[in-house]
Amino acid sequence: MSRNNVVVTDITRADAATTAALGAHGVATVHEAMGRRGLAGTALHPRQVGARIAGAAVTALCWPGDNLMIHAAVEQCRDGDILVVTTVSPSLDGSFGELFATALQRRGVRGLVTTGGVRDVADLRAMGFPVWSGAVSAQGTVKDTPGSVNVPIVVGGVSVRPGDIIVADDDGVLCVPRANAEQTLAAADARAEREAASRAAYRQGELSLDRNELRPVLRDLGVTYMTQMEYEAGHGRG
Amino acid sequence: MSRNNVVVTDITRADAATTAALGAHGVATVHEAMGRRGLAGTALHPRQVGARIAGAAVTALCWPGDNLMIHAAVEQCRDGDILVVTTVSPSLDGSFGELFATALQRRGVRGLVTTGGVRDVADLRAMGFPVWSGAVSAQGTVKDTPGSVNVPIVVGGVSVRPGDIIVADDDGVLCVPRANAEQTLAAADARAEREAASRAAYRQGELSLDRNELRPVLRDLGVTYMTQMEYEAGHGRG
Amino acid sequence: MSRNNVVVTDITRADAATTAALGAHGVATVHEAMGRRGLAGTALHPRQVGARIAGAAVTALCWPGDNLMIHAAVEQCRDGDILVVTTVSPSLDGSFGELFATALQRRGVRGLVTTGGVRDVADLRAMGFPVWSGAVSAQGTVKDTPGSVNVPIVVGGVSVRPGDIIVADDDGVLCVPRANAEQTLAAADARAEREAASRAAYRQGELSLDRNELRPVLRDLGVTYMTQMEYEAGHGRG
Amino acid sequence: MSRNNVVVTDITRADAATTAALGAHGVATVHEAMGRRGLAGTALHPRQVGARIAGAAVTALCWPGDNLMIHAAVEQCRDGDILVVTTVSPSLDGSFGELFATALQRRGVRGLVTTGGVRDVADLRAMGFPVWSGAVSAQGTVKDTPGSVNVPIVVGGVSVRPGDIIVADDDGVLCVPRANAEQTLAAADARAEREAASRAAYRQGELSLDRNELRPVLRDLGVTYMTQMEYEAGHGRG
Amino acid sequence: MSRNNVVVTDITRADAATTAALGAHGVATVHEAMGRRGLAGTALHPRQVGARIAGAAVTALCWPGDNLMIHAAVEQCRDGDILVVTTVSPSLDGSFGELFATALQRRGVRGLVTTGGVRDVADLRAMGFPVWSGAVSAQGTVKDTPGSVNVPIVVGGVSVRPGDIIVADDDGVLCVPRANAEQTLAAADARAEREAASRAAYRQGELSLDRNELRPVLRDLGVTYMTQMEYEAGHGRG
Amino acid sequence: MSRNNVVVTDITRADAATTAALGAHGVATVHEAMGRRGLAGTALHPRQVGARIAGAAVTALCWPGDNLMIHAAVEQCRDGDILVVTTVSPSLDGSFGELFATALQRRGVRGLVTTGGVRDVADLRAMGFPVWSGAVSAQGTVKDTPGSVNVPIVVGGVSVRPGDIIVADDDGVLCVPRANAEQTLAAADARAEREAASRAAYRQGELSLDRNELRPVLRDLGVTYMTQMEYEAGHGRG
Repeated sequence: MSRNNVVVTDITRADAATTAALGAHGVATVHEAMGRRGLAGTALHPRQVGARIAGAAVTALCWPGDNLMIHAAVEQCRDGDILVVTTVSPSLDGSFGELFATALQRRGVRGLVTTGGVRDVADLRAMGFPVWSGAVSAQGTVKDTPGSVNVPIVVGGVSVRPGDIIVADDDGVLCVPRANAEQTLAAADARAEREAASRAAYRQGELSLDRNELRPVLRDLGVTYMTQMEYEAGHGRG
Repeated sequence: MSRNNVVVTDITRADAATTAALGAHGVATVHEAMGRRGLAGTALHPRQVGARIAGAAVTALCWPGDNLMIHAAVEQCRDGDILVVTTVSPSLDGSFGELFATALQRRGVRGLVTTGGVRDVADLRAMGFPVWSGAVSAQGTVKDTPGSVNVPIVVGGVSVRPGDIIVADDDGVLCVPRANAEQTLAAADARAEREAASRAAYRQGELSLDRNELRPVLRDLGVTYMTQMEYEAGHGRG
Repeated sequence: MSRNNVVVTDITRADAATTAALGAHGVATVHEAMGRRGLAGTALHPRQVGARIAGAAVTALCWPGDNLMIHAAVEQCRDGDILVVTTVSPSLDGSFGELFATALQRRGVRGLVTTGGVRDVADLRAMGFPVWSGAVSAQGTVKDTPGSVNVPIVVGGVSVRPGDIIVADDDGVLCVPRANAEQTLAAADARAEREAASRAAYRQGELSLDRNELRPVLRDLGVTYMTQMEYEAGHGRG
Repeated sequence: MSRNNVVVTDITRADAATTAALGAHGVATVHEAMGRRGLAGTALHPRQVGARIAGAAVTALCWPGDNLMIHAAVEQCRDGDILVVTTVSPSLDGSFGELFATALQRRGVRGLVTTGGVRDVADLRAMGFPVWSGAVSAQGTVKDTPGSVNVPIVVGGVSVRPGDIIVADDDGVLCVPRANAEQTLAAADARAEREAASRAAYRQGELSLDRNELRPVLRDLGVTYMTQMEYEAGHGRG
Repeated sequence: MSRNNVVVTDITRADAATTAALGAHGVATVHEAMGRRGLAGTALHPRQVGARIAGAAVTALCWPGDNLMIHAAVEQCRDGDILVVTTVSPSLDGSFGELFATALQRRGVRGLVTTGGVRDVADLRAMGFPVWSGAVSAQGTVKDTPGSVNVPIVVGGVSVRPGDIIVADDDGVLCVPRANAEQTLAAADARAEREAASRAAYRQGELSLDRNELRPVLRDLGVTYMTQMEYEAGHGRG
Repeated sequence: MSRNNVVVTDITRADAATTAALGAHGVATVHEAMGRRGLAGTALHPRQVGARIAGAAVTALCWPGDNLMIHAAVEQCRDGDILVVTTVSPSLDGSFGELFATALQRRGVRGLVTTGGVRDVADLRAMGFPVWSGAVSAQGTVKDTPGSVNVPIVVGGVSVRPGDIIVADDDGVLCVPRANAEQTLAAADARAEREAASRAAYRQGELSLDRNELRPVLRDLGVTYMTQMEYEAGHGRG
């Protein structure tokens, strides 16, 4: 079969400064700046409160119940990376824990994103190694079956290629394709500026209906206003 | 079709003092006082720890992936309200974030309950704007499709009418129909008193089996007591 | 029918010192020491952060929506126990709350594990009574239908017999059969020692690939290394 | 507590001829005719292939794991009715089987809709008694806990009142409020006529893009057309 | 660790005649006869319509994504058996297909029950080899990791020991412990007789309310009867 | 933002003969031939029994609750294609029904794969237009929000590019990348031949343990054989 199991080395990573600037904006703003694409679903949850990271993706594709390829992936990680793990078919087993985090932290890795499970979460929080995962599970794994490192994978419905930018915070996990990084950052900067202006306006009591000129939109869509008394008269039992 | 999309204004709200008193009891006690009705399932989770709010429901019914009607609902909210949002069909998209919370907080709104998703949760926690939602998701929404404000909706299997009382805390979200408010409060007061007495008794070591006179109930239902030795002798392999 | 509803008394409990020693190791380590068995799935979540308990199981088997047998189970609990509750068919109703916790805490019970729901979670946290449950739900229950106490039950896919050791922490809930306790403790002690050595090595920069001698494993499984340039050349579109 | 458990008798039912005419249109057409409201989610599945029924709702609200109120509801059912069952909190236990169907068929009842489980499904198919349920489950229930008959209930996120029209087929379950029946039928008739014309046009090769005048919509929304060659040139890695 | 991976041979099976007689009753009746125990949840679905089998359990415990132990289990199966498969942690991969069914059918095996996935389902139906599984999935598995054959396993929340009786039909999967077989059969025979009498009565129009003497039960539980007119008068908005 | 909404025309499709030959093998065999990649999870179900199709993918990416882009996609479909639909965020609304199927069947389209919902399923079966979908739902959609046609999408965790080969049958949905088609067909042919030989052998009673030389594998992995008597003696309570 053509697609053998491989460990791909020497990947090209997104620019570090752009990555950091995107991270400062956070997931929600960058997601909007990308045209509302790239978000890894709602099945990956932060296992700590308040962390926000950004880095270059090193990917690992494992067999369910097996973490052999995470061992191989560690070596491919370097300062500023985020390890991104998934399995060939769904598995929530706890393929990652504190010993892996120790090794990754030593290498300057920013955190972990996995569709699978993690364990030792109390230790991970104590170490300050942030994790987004599909589950917390102590269920251990074996090291028996091959997979790949640094091949394109799908995480939460989103394609992630090695070297793409991952941004993760309390709102979720986002993948910014490496080729779109500069353009996305420019859009995010612009959006953040607009949001700051809106925030100030809303604090003054302006309505988003007015600020976004939505009243004519409602009218054109046929939304009508009536009092509760009118509504109940016209609707019988409601 | 008869039920057009409407924004209903001038709704009648439950009495503020009764609402506050129900809020002080909390979800679990008021739920019992209502005869164990009105609880919005287990799919809505608090996105902060330790918040407890009560207020009058302003409802918004949105199209999936669209938050146009939340914009319209903000204008209908006033001091002491809770915004309650759902979608015509299930959607966990992040239709609500920090900018909406800023606008609502300016108006004195107590918090948000939504079957959909929220984003900017770190900001929401920092602002002290409590939220109960079906998900955390940065997935943005559009403003393209009409819906309604202040019509009756169903949230987590429970009917919510505009002006009904919403109580929400770490135990979940409860809807007290406006017409039942006084009666429910009286029942909740009585229950809280009984619970205080039970609490004191249990701290002294009394058993709920005795306090609730459940021993004859068990006997009448045919529950028998035996030692482990007797059980294993009579049951072979268990 | 042969298996009547019973309350089994005078159960034999696992040794307290062994139980405590297993608790000190935590779920992930003991689970490995048991050969990766005994973990109660990923559907039971801690309702507090950072608790770790171990104790002897007192089991209760309830009808859905009914907590009669929890009332009966309280009397069977003593110092050092953990109450383990499930229902005959799935139910997330809030069959357990602060009043039960008050009674159990008075008896020295360490905590609760339930496939069902709990309520009063803010109170439970304030009391320091740790809980692992299938849900948080204020939905109350009745006391109408019989069940059993201290019979073997299945919790999260794992068999639990009265007197077995339960270990629970942020990683999940584990059941160690009473008969395996000593052996499991010895294996856990050995494992913890090995992990400490590995931790030190990883902090020095050693790779788990080398420490676990996984390079030949990868080679034998046909995993090949190539640069990204080579990979893209050979794979066309990836 | 105010809302006691009741069996409501002598309910007013929707007009039989209108009900039958709505049934002939089927769920999808009537749902559109109602403005896309009233559909009972995607969690209720037909347990046979090809059945389509319509009738007046007799509702039963049961305790989880208990079918006492179904026994009471049978007596309230008459020719042309559909029994609609739910539980106070979620339960998939098999509270309905062939003996109930025998009794209901004797009374002229058209079928069953339940958020719970059913059993004896092979018998139900053989009898020609159609069922839409949340599950198939042999798990039996008790007759211990009170509930209500012919009170308003929520089924799959939709409010159902006694006497409302239920339409059910392979596409799902729909509730048409009794007060909207005539109006909905008129809209459904009109829609069916339009659909017949569209069907004929599509068979001739007309495109819905043209028939619905969607090309200008796409253009106004900024959707552009390009060849794959142009797309790949402009998008780099896609 | 004490519990090594084993293939247990020469298991004692339940009596064949009793097994066949239980099978003739079907899952729902036998489940009732067992006191409503032993049902393997609602997550295992028949992959054909109308099959009903009973046989002695041969169990296989596999690693997720791995079917090595099914290969080992085939040899332990003989005429009249049912193969029952689960995984150490949840996996829906298609670990079983037509080639295994061919081998098992050759040995007289009645069918398969698995918490995992099956594939080649069109072939399985054509062969007349019935299957109950957690999923249909073509996702293939490897043969790398050890497990056990004929050890006790948990399937859908129910303990299954080798040699226990499995009954499966359109209503689900039931496990009758070998030691309870005779007693269960007697209870099932009695129940079937009572059900036949009830069926005849219901066909004559008798109500289960009367036949089961439930009217006094309703009255004692405080369920009251009122007309819809009375109900609406007393309940305001319902 | 760079990735605008586009309708891509003139896509390159996989070779028709190769596509047909892969279809003849079916999903399970081709999936194995691809090295167990490309399967679209277990959330897409056939809505008919026994269909097997293969064709070139035309992709549509829609907003949740909106089917505007399906209207645009129809025009891009031609004889031998399969329409593959997903939404930007999860939605099970019934965005596809009999009118679309009529138009597609006119154009020679083989069937539909969608992560969303379909309706009119009785009509679709009667027409012989096969569908694999995430749900059956009558919930209608609007035509308000833009999306794209013939861009790469992710379906059930698998990347699908326009022109890729889709194979779908009772076992699920598989995507074969266009570039891998020939190679995959060769591997599938070889595999089918091997399977035929194995099938014949198993019919003669040969064991897969022997045919696949798994006995030494089991031995090397430490799996031991013992009788039930030995097992129970050594394991105490099992």
